[in-house]
Amino acid sequence: MSIETTDALTPRWDAAGLITAVATHAVSGEVLMLAHMNADALARTIETGEAWFWSRSRGRLWKKGESSGHVLRVIEARIDCDQDAVWLRVDPAGPACHTGERSCFYRRIEGERLIHGA
Amino acid sequence: MSIETTDALTPRWDAAGLITAVATHAVSGEVLMLAHMNADALARTIETGEAWFWSRSRGRLWKKGESSGHVLRVIEARIDCDQDAVWLRVDPAGPACHTGERSCFYRRIEGERLIHGA
Repeated sequence: MSIETTDALTPRWDAAGLITAVATHAVSGEVLMLAHMNADALARTIETGEAWFWSRSRGRLWKKGESSGHVLRVIEARIDCDQDAVWLRVDPAGPACHTGERSCFYRRIEGERLIHGA
Repeated sequence: MSIETTDALTPRWDAAGLITAVATHAVSGEVLMLAHMNADALARTIETGEAWFWSRSRGRLWKKGESSGHVLRVIEARIDCDQDAVWLRVDPAGPACHTGERSCFYRRIEGERLIHGA
């Protein structure tokens, strides 16, 4: 079976040992945040049902909400065709963005300008 | 103004000159695919209203659907807090995945196994 058809979880880690993870609100479908996972982060996410990531800037594993309390409870986790991206459908305990916004994607692109909000 | 509060589109390209882009179905909210954009791909996407990406495997710019016809018409484009990820809400002209699946995320993760479908 190829990586596209296998029923075995066999992530295709990049050179840094990471895959990309996108979290959406399980009810509204809003994209909340995008981050990265190493093998440990993915394993902990699957085991605990809460989202763990690898922080590239801080160089360490982190549980989303570990300091803010705004954890992401994972309702469903999916993986893409070539197994280098994960989609988490989550129930967020609070704002997903460290800025306090509900989603990190709080600005719309209009040409070269950004419009805050919907 | 910081990168988080500015109203100027100033993407934070990675070492390879790329940002991550996630495309969701504008109506259903389903995550369709995840890919990468360089500056040219982002500019063309904004100008044309159809999704362009940078193929890391092929090392070239590509318009999604250029061969299949399954273009992604962009309803709305948003950017995240640190401007290294773009969220496209799209109207897809056909299956978004090269496998023929509606979405690239056609498998659910259950422990170490993948379940095809919903």
